[in-house]
Amino acid sequence: MPTITSVDVIDVRFPTSATLDGSDAMNPDGDYSAAYVVLGTDDDLTGYGLTFTIGRGNDLCVAAARQIAARLAGRDVDALAADLGGLYREIMADSQMRWLGPEKGVVHLAAAAVLNAAWDLAARRAGKPLWRLVADMTPEEIVAACDFRYLSDVLTPAEAVEMLARLHPTREERVAELAEHGYPAYTTSPGWLGYDDGKLRQLVREAVADGWTHVKLKVGADVDDDVRRLSIAREELGHRNLMIDANQVWDVPDAISWVNRLAAFEPLWIEEPTSPDDVLGHAAIRKAVAPVGVATGEHCHNRVMFKQLLQAEAIDFCQIDSCRLASVNEIIPILLMAAKFGVPVCPHAGGVGLCEIVQHLSVIDYVCVSGSLEGRVLEYVDHLHEHFTDPVRVGGGRYRLPEAPGYSAQMRPDSVEAYRYPDGPQWAKQ
Amino acid sequence: MPTITSVDVIDVRFPTSATLDGSDAMNPDGDYSAAYVVLGTDDDLTGYGLTFTIGRGNDLCVAAARQIAARLAGRDVDALAADLGGLYREIMADSQMRWLGPEKGVVHLAAAAVLNAAWDLAARRAGKPLWRLVADMTPEEIVAACDFRYLSDVLTPAEAVEMLARLHPTREERVAELAEHGYPAYTTSPGWLGYDDGKLRQLVREAVADGWTHVKLKVGADVDDDVRRLSIAREELGHRNLMIDANQVWDVPDAISWVNRLAAFEPLWIEEPTSPDDVLGHAAIRKAVAPVGVATGEHCHNRVMFKQLLQAEAIDFCQIDSCRLASVNEIIPILLMAAKFGVPVCPHAGGVGLCEIVQHLSVIDYVCVSGSLEGRVLEYVDHLHEHFTDPVRVGGGRYRLPEAPGYSAQMRPDSVEAYRYPDGPQWAKQ
Repeated sequence: MPTITSVDVIDVRFPTSATLDGSDAMNPDGDYSAAYVVLGTDDDLTGYGLTFTIGRGNDLCVAAARQIAARLAGRDVDALAADLGGLYREIMADSQMRWLGPEKGVVHLAAAAVLNAAWDLAARRAGKPLWRLVADMTPEEIVAACDFRYLSDVLTPAEAVEMLARLHPTREERVAELAEHGYPAYTTSPGWLGYDDGKLRQLVREAVADGWTHVKLKVGADVDDDVRRLSIAREELGHRNLMIDANQVWDVPDAISWVNRLAAFEPLWIEEPTSPDDVLGHAAIRKAVAPVGVATGEHCHNRVMFKQLLQAEAIDFCQIDSCRLASVNEIIPILLMAAKFGVPVCPHAGGVGLCEIVQHLSVIDYVCVSGSLEGRVLEYVDHLHEHFTDPVRVGGGRYRLPEAPGYSAQMRPDSVEAYRYPDGPQWAKQ
Repeated sequence: MPTITSVDVIDVRFPTSATLDGSDAMNPDGDYSAAYVVLGTDDDLTGYGLTFTIGRGNDLCVAAARQIAARLAGRDVDALAADLGGLYREIMADSQMRWLGPEKGVVHLAAAAVLNAAWDLAARRAGKPLWRLVADMTPEEIVAACDFRYLSDVLTPAEAVEMLARLHPTREERVAELAEHGYPAYTTSPGWLGYDDGKLRQLVREAVADGWTHVKLKVGADVDDDVRRLSIAREELGHRNLMIDANQVWDVPDAISWVNRLAAFEPLWIEEPTSPDDVLGHAAIRKAVAPVGVATGEHCHNRVMFKQLLQAEAIDFCQIDSCRLASVNEIIPILLMAAKFGVPVCPHAGGVGLCEIVQHLSVIDYVCVSGSLEGRVLEYVDHLHEHFTDPVRVGGGRYRLPEAPGYSAQMRPDSVEAYRYPDGPQWAKQ
């Protein structure tokens, strides 16, 4: 019966702005960072979770996560693991903290970090990877762990149980398939806006050689540059899939004209064409740029926003983020709604640890929720995996099924020490 | 040529949870709080601004405001006052901080506090109340200070100039009218959920005696209680206006059935029937509960959400909040959009300082933007005004026009000292 005896939240930042890795039209100089939660116990067991930011303000998420996580000290791990829905509701019910959102911004990011750590702890306690912890739950158990508040006009808990029950008997077939073939992925690594044409061409060429069938490029700073860069990428890709990502730089009319200018390069999707809050704007853009698809979600702050993106038929691809949404509890209802509306979930990843964490959610989507790989590709970015103890394994354009217990969010202790902000040696020397 | 020489942000909290003032179905025990920004100069001039929270997490807004405001140290006050649009854009352009929203949650609340202080400083420097500072600006100057990003599908800056120019020649007529008669208001003071029936009846009766024509009650915890409480209020109010406020407790179907159960009491509006993020949900509720109107906005986090509430015909009353939106720069575009759609703006107030601040915005709406008082009532709550140096003056159901220079956000120094959290004497003794 282990008990949580320590709650630590650490500000970890990587100076990625120095190399323009991760540069896009909205975010020219991010320092990829994590508010990193460590739940220690009196046993040989620790839970790890994080939320991802791009530098300044990571301290705010750390401070918020400390306040939210403080309640976990002294808790029995097995009781916690048996009622992760209860923990979620307890965190969300703090009305004073709720005022600061509700369910958005720093407080929601921090809640995600804490809940990710709690799910990691539960999975480690069970000796299972996170996806397997969920795949071993009954439909009723999954629904009890989830938040359906504000969703009942689109999806009730009873309907969710039905959906999950339909796929329950065949879960192991899909697990076996993923164990053999892995989960399909795409790469964003070649396409950062700060890279010059030569580096772009070289990286796309390498991506093709490495077996990638889908490659994503950043766009939106200068339309002539975009035409030239897409032309290079299309030459190298041939008939493989090209996606483009504007990171919210456009108003609705600009998005429509700009994307239509780039339509000749046949992008599979335009990602984040405008404000992530603009559900109706995305719907208008989608109508106007078809057959180019519309993708968004990495900045959509909660399940209510995804509900509306689906209701309004605003998106062709649903891009959940594992650290902006409040963990498995909030994300499974989004997977269910997307499945109901027939929209494929293609999660956002990259940053620090997002690939490690979100791969579990794509597995859950396939095994438990949608039962389909059609139109699904999981983002991959080749950054910072070396800092994790159980890094993603990617090859031939696919993620291999994670096998180690937990949610894959544990960072290497030496990395945490080196990049701890502002006192770690990697920052002290700057 | 005064220069900003100090930037101070103070955590001020009032223990309002002890008396159930401010209690509602979502927020049973708020401690009304402010992240209070003080911009000192080398002259006899200081700028004051704040954002409002209800307790825990106020420290997060303070920490964020400190980071955002740090850039103001050393700035020339006249240069700052001459380009408040530039300051706004500079703050919003910090892409690392933007990641934590964007434009929502703790970071946006903190930006509001800092920008409110900058506007206060500019108004004091000009020796004018904030509303007068704006009323003396040309349409072009107002538009230059505002943020139209993501709005151009509904309102362009050029169209905004045209709208403002139409009312420009007659601004002084409306100022004179407000100086004589004041701005129409409503009171929420009688209706907190924690008050018993006797106190409710007594307070509504007193409100009627004091000349109030509009009274708002909290609802949503228990429908039978609501029926009983509305019955009491309706008895005391006669044909005066009754509004009800659910503070986001319902899913969409529940909102519709509950409000229709209360429709017999002929509420003018149902406020916050569901998640503030649910634009389409509000639209569905509005259709289903007419002729009861739908009001929302105190938790709508930015101009993009208001744009959609208007586009979707989801609201009958637009309830801006002076401290959740990023100050005058973001709010005037919302006033303009509401005017274009013919939706009256009835701001949220109460809390700490919200009445003091938002009264200026209603004056700007009437004098510069909509030119109409039809359907407009500004919220009034009789809480905590004694802590301000220029408190609102309310009588006969109307706000009197503010006259002192600034944005009315300065708190009394002795109040700040007494309620400073956690070290002020009012907290140290708890």
